[in-house]
Amino acid sequence: MNIVKELAVKNDKKIVLLVMDGLGGLPMEKGGKTELETAKTPVMDALAMESECGLQTPLGIGITPGSAPGHFSLFGYNPFDYSIGRGVVAAMGINFPMKAGDVAARINFATKDSGGNITDRRAGRIPTEKCAELCDMLKSIDIEGVKVSVQPVKDYRAVVVFKGEGLSDKVADTDPQATGVKPLNPRPTAEDGRRMAEITAEFVLQVNKILKNSKPANTILMRGFAELPHIPSMKDQYKLNPAALAVYPDYKGISRLLGMDIIEGLTTLEDQAEALKINWSRHDFFFVHHKYTDSKGEDGNFNAKVSEIEKVDAFLPELLELKPDVLIITGDHSTPAFLKAHSGHPVPFLIHAEGIRPDDVSHFGERSCAKGLWSNIPGEMLIRLALSYAGKLKKYGA
Amino acid sequence: MNIVKELAVKNDKKIVLLVMDGLGGLPMEKGGKTELETAKTPVMDALAMESECGLQTPLGIGITPGSAPGHFSLFGYNPFDYSIGRGVVAAMGINFPMKAGDVAARINFATKDSGGNITDRRAGRIPTEKCAELCDMLKSIDIEGVKVSVQPVKDYRAVVVFKGEGLSDKVADTDPQATGVKPLNPRPTAEDGRRMAEITAEFVLQVNKILKNSKPANTILMRGFAELPHIPSMKDQYKLNPAALAVYPDYKGISRLLGMDIIEGLTTLEDQAEALKINWSRHDFFFVHHKYTDSKGEDGNFNAKVSEIEKVDAFLPELLELKPDVLIITGDHSTPAFLKAHSGHPVPFLIHAEGIRPDDVSHFGERSCAKGLWSNIPGEMLIRLALSYAGKLKKYGA
Repeated sequence: MNIVKELAVKNDKKIVLLVMDGLGGLPMEKGGKTELETAKTPVMDALAMESECGLQTPLGIGITPGSAPGHFSLFGYNPFDYSIGRGVVAAMGINFPMKAGDVAARINFATKDSGGNITDRRAGRIPTEKCAELCDMLKSIDIEGVKVSVQPVKDYRAVVVFKGEGLSDKVADTDPQATGVKPLNPRPTAEDGRRMAEITAEFVLQVNKILKNSKPANTILMRGFAELPHIPSMKDQYKLNPAALAVYPDYKGISRLLGMDIIEGLTTLEDQAEALKINWSRHDFFFVHHKYTDSKGEDGNFNAKVSEIEKVDAFLPELLELKPDVLIITGDHSTPAFLKAHSGHPVPFLIHAEGIRPDDVSHFGERSCAKGLWSNIPGEMLIRLALSYAGKLKKYGA
Repeated sequence: MNIVKELAVKNDKKIVLLVMDGLGGLPMEKGGKTELETAKTPVMDALAMESECGLQTPLGIGITPGSAPGHFSLFGYNPFDYSIGRGVVAAMGINFPMKAGDVAARINFATKDSGGNITDRRAGRIPTEKCAELCDMLKSIDIEGVKVSVQPVKDYRAVVVFKGEGLSDKVADTDPQATGVKPLNPRPTAEDGRRMAEITAEFVLQVNKILKNSKPANTILMRGFAELPHIPSMKDQYKLNPAALAVYPDYKGISRLLGMDIIEGLTTLEDQAEALKINWSRHDFFFVHHKYTDSKGEDGNFNAKVSEIEKVDAFLPELLELKPDVLIITGDHSTPAFLKAHSGHPVPFLIHAEGIRPDDVSHFGERSCAKGLWSNIPGEMLIRLALSYAGKLKKYGA
């Protein structure tokens, strides 16, 4: 990546990275087509004709990406260099302003019996409003030298962020992943986690005191202690001035981690199209994220995923009117409805720009793109192609 | 590379690497063909039919190679491990016999006013003959323990090479990249550059004294202090006895850096064909370089580049008469006429030998080779293929 940083130059060319989350798919039966192969995508197909196509593998062959690593790869950040702990993902997901040195952990509100043994790891799956009430109750927690913030996430899930000097994420989970046993004591996983383990123990003590009479949530389980990783911004790395047009908080969070400007208040593709127009002159890189291809894949709903892809195809003409200098269409990973889950299958992509060598791919699909100019490349390379085709990378060497 | 060194064995098989500089191209308009796709290349096409084809990317996807790194990659040397500073490139360009430990820097003759401020960073772009006169005047420079040689390059450009014990290239440029200001003092960029910075200061002092009454060039600006990198020779690495048949000094320079024998006095493809015959029995690796594909690309002259490719095609039968055991035809990077510049686009290659798996590529071109047996591989891998197909690499492991 440093070589790209060294070569990056600023110009006015505009890059759009359109990500259909979980785009890659599988046939539901022998001889069948994937979701993308099934979808009617006249706009993407026409684009493919004038584009270079291929497959990209976000984390290497056979590795199934989570959402954060899948996106990191697309933005050109090695997902193994920049792993983000669960606590940070949770904090980002609710748009919590974490800073370097802060430590976050995921919380489950849970139920324990009078003997202190866990009877329900999810406190009867309390709703989010109840979760928010409990978080409010925990505002009175007071630990010397540490600022503690507990925020609701969804249902029984919350997140705690500790701010202070000399904190550490070297603390093991307190969640025993079982009922009928006591929560684990916070234990340092390395020498420099000792103080943080003490802080966590004090935190759990005060939580238990405050929730003593609460029902059904009278205790907490903690997981995924994580510090904000130091991540160089896309501005630093690529001299870009990027904007994120995402609906879901997690993707705004990831974008914020990379120093993108977040366009807030978007809930539909129409909003995203409108926001692109409004912000077109202000940025040179636009990350446009569509979530529901992934959601429908996770649901195992093949037809609904097809329909989400078709919605994006119908949204494309508005994007194309802006005449981006470089347009990439791809996904962050595969989420085949057949598997109802993320998978490691490569993801099709097309890159459209001036000064390319269009291949003969005439339909945007997994197996057609496999025969495209690029065959199968690491997902991390896409940003290089984008920068290169936008004239944003100087020559290396005399 | 070390694994290749470990496995390399000597035999009598002969390898030819034919490089058309800047070979890769782009269509000039939508739906068009590239230079190579346009060129009538019956010989290369017939070869492609009996060859394994593919694309190679000299410096990784999206990175635009300079000439030196592009060639380093072709010779199997990681261009990022063996980066060559501007001073060395300049010295090589004029065929100056630099040795390990020498330090070279690029010089601009420049004009300063009575206050010492730069008024012209190029001294009115004095011609090369004037530059040579000035370099002659600087022969009287005398620095204790250091041998100084100043040589003209082109127009106002010169190169200085310092020879002596304990020199270093850890010295910052003195060129302020602006007029109206004084040249920068030579400043060490690391602790071990301290003495070299003093030597440079003494050099600049003497230059200014000598040029005091010279017009318009009465001072110098220095850039790109560089030591000759330590580069293992191709003989060391591959047990080859290589010869370079290049017309342009830069490519002879690069070849000399890798320990090749340079066949001097060549100016045309006919000379190169003749020299191949004469030297055929004396070497087992022949680097044949054709410059003008790149030059015409840089000029933006699509048709002239097509014609250069066709000239090389017409030259090929003479080469083939020698029956090389392995023949690779490729380029060191792309120089599309459309861009009038080097670019990062992959470069087509074919490799012809006994004991291969010819694919169905029937025309030597960018998009046809993309569908060849090798799809897209790093440029560095070509030398391995060549050695392997020439039987010059032992089995690894029992």
